[in-house]
Amino acid sequence: MAALRRGNLDRLIRRLATTGPGHRAELARATQVTRTTGSSLVNELLQRGVVIELPRTPDADQGGHVDGRAGATVQLSDRLWTAGIETTLDTISASVRTATGATMGTASTTVNPEDGWEVRRDAALSLLNELLADERSAGVRLLGLGIGVPGQVAPDGQVTGALADQPWSGVNVREVMEAETGVPVLVDNNVRMETFAESRWGAGRGCSNVLYAHAASGIAVGMVIDGELVRGHNGSAGEFGHLSIDVAGDQCACGNRGCLVLSAGRAAVMRSLERTWPESPTWEQVLTLAAAGDRAAAGAFHQAGDRLGMALAGLVNVVAPELVIIGGDMARAGEVLRDSVARRVHELALSTHRDVPVVLSELGGGPAVGASGAAAMVWSDPRTDRRIIDRLLS
Amino acid sequence: MAALRRGNLDRLIRRLATTGPGHRAELARATQVTRTTGSSLVNELLQRGVVIELPRTPDADQGGHVDGRAGATVQLSDRLWTAGIETTLDTISASVRTATGATMGTASTTVNPEDGWEVRRDAALSLLNELLADERSAGVRLLGLGIGVPGQVAPDGQVTGALADQPWSGVNVREVMEAETGVPVLVDNNVRMETFAESRWGAGRGCSNVLYAHAASGIAVGMVIDGELVRGHNGSAGEFGHLSIDVAGDQCACGNRGCLVLSAGRAAVMRSLERTWPESPTWEQVLTLAAAGDRAAAGAFHQAGDRLGMALAGLVNVVAPELVIIGGDMARAGEVLRDSVARRVHELALSTHRDVPVVLSELGGGPAVGASGAAAMVWSDPRTDRRIIDRLLS
Repeated sequence: MAALRRGNLDRLIRRLATTGPGHRAELARATQVTRTTGSSLVNELLQRGVVIELPRTPDADQGGHVDGRAGATVQLSDRLWTAGIETTLDTISASVRTATGATMGTASTTVNPEDGWEVRRDAALSLLNELLADERSAGVRLLGLGIGVPGQVAPDGQVTGALADQPWSGVNVREVMEAETGVPVLVDNNVRMETFAESRWGAGRGCSNVLYAHAASGIAVGMVIDGELVRGHNGSAGEFGHLSIDVAGDQCACGNRGCLVLSAGRAAVMRSLERTWPESPTWEQVLTLAAAGDRAAAGAFHQAGDRLGMALAGLVNVVAPELVIIGGDMARAGEVLRDSVARRVHELALSTHRDVPVVLSELGGGPAVGASGAAAMVWSDPRTDRRIIDRLLS
Repeated sequence: MAALRRGNLDRLIRRLATTGPGHRAELARATQVTRTTGSSLVNELLQRGVVIELPRTPDADQGGHVDGRAGATVQLSDRLWTAGIETTLDTISASVRTATGATMGTASTTVNPEDGWEVRRDAALSLLNELLADERSAGVRLLGLGIGVPGQVAPDGQVTGALADQPWSGVNVREVMEAETGVPVLVDNNVRMETFAESRWGAGRGCSNVLYAHAASGIAVGMVIDGELVRGHNGSAGEFGHLSIDVAGDQCACGNRGCLVLSAGRAAVMRSLERTWPESPTWEQVLTLAAAGDRAAAGAFHQAGDRLGMALAGLVNVVAPELVIIGGDMARAGEVLRDSVARRVHELALSTHRDVPVVLSELGGGPAVGASGAAAMVWSDPRTDRRIIDRLLS
């Protein structure tokens, strides 16, 4: 009987974590127990501080009357938080969320591209402490941490990529961060974290097949296929920047020739502008100039978007998404980039795909979004969700 | 109670169709009913002719003794068959299988690449009649038909591709074939059918992430990701031949430049040999010459394999398979093709993927394999499995 009750408590928490608050009666139905058992389970979770009851308010569906039979609305306690961190080559972002999904704080800091993983770890922990400092005294409990890193992440949390732009390479980030924080940690590729957020709350809401293209210093994709994030064998799916689009092109650090990233990444935009402006503008200035319609800056994004669109057309033929979303630092250039990408995809993909929408990230792409996705993902990933519930019920 | 019993019969049939024969006791356990209920269900299926009992034989696990307690071994009747058909540009193959997976017959015929869909339909039906003619009088019952066609297939069975090499384009193949055969028909992309067969019984056995590359007149891929075949939005995933690998390359019929198929498909091999032999050999002769080590023929496959490997390296980075399988007509050239593909994949994919095995199809790729996969897939696809069981129990 203890195991049965434990299983029911487990299902009740999962239901509250994934579908949100519900009336006592609904919750009993959804977890397939009698109303009496349901109430007893809810009471136990109230005592443990896992859930809270909301004040009864008139329900519009019931003609403005309080539906006494359904019972009070129950939700996970707003003092149960998860945190997310995303690290890119030069930025570290953190975000904290309640178990009901409200974002309670975000923070960001920059690091040098040459900084090693220890510097990044310390910066991430500082951001977390900053976001949680006042809250811990107010009884907030951190349940889990999701962390997104560039490169390929093995299922055990080891970062396996070995390119120069993957500073965590060789580090078991899960072990490192669990030792530091004492909570279950989920590590995944940073673009996958952004894809999770964007497909759940952003432009990809309601779509089962999403191709999210993150263009920045590197170029990577996140894929949702039949509603599931694609990780691939050993968690290393999504590297798109080293697709060769030009057999006779320049040599790339990866060993290939004519890689997409050489002509469609942030460095390509900067390089093409060096010829125009001998005193190089900063990346932020270039973004501002492009948005303001400066011809040279817009032209540089147009050229990059052209190549990105060409490559995406080929990938669209292979994975057949219902939607293509462009995110990452390059997407901050806005329509000038999206236009050129979309034009090429619509021109070059096979006819069955020519009306696939190509849109900009609604959440703005980038590390802050990834951090928020990471904080949410710990509730739905089998690597952490069980451990979180175990801790809540222990 | 009738609904409950019906549900139990359903689960019992599914279990027998997917896991194979079992003792009465095992079946009761697996379908979560008591042994008495299990026996009563099996008896009903025996009466309906859906299952048969095998003669009791000494069981090695039981020290050579007959295990009387477990009951007789039960399996689906070997008179329940499914059929599969695969159609490519110039070949139509058919295969019939018992519900326990034994292949009972295969047949093939050629058509002209210019032939319309009606000619192909009639050829397919002739093959089927030929394979079933003697059997129908022996009480064999056809339960379902799987059919693989080139191009993109919408979930309703409509072929949506519009390239010249997709003769079924615009036809609702499911409707056409159900009207002709009177059984539930599953339509899917032909390369997906081959991928299903190869990943279940061939080189991909036991792998959860498989990339199957079919190279012939066209080039397409089948993907198994986390154990599931990828169909993509509207069922149109897998077109790989129109990935551009050369921005400055020749114009392709699809509108793009430098498409993979232009340098790695069957036509590319033939074209490169036209220069060597003014009196063009046939495709079969070229395959024989290449296998025999003829320098020009081997060189043509080497060149094609080089380009295919380059493109596959890019796709391997994106989908991260644990295994790459090469099938289709080009794979009949054997090691000369595999070698060049594997060399390029291992040279150009990112380091996390450089030890991905690149192997030839074990089943020999091509239409006969696809037909066999199609015959099996009707048992496991939600579009047909329910209808098959409904018919068995009606």
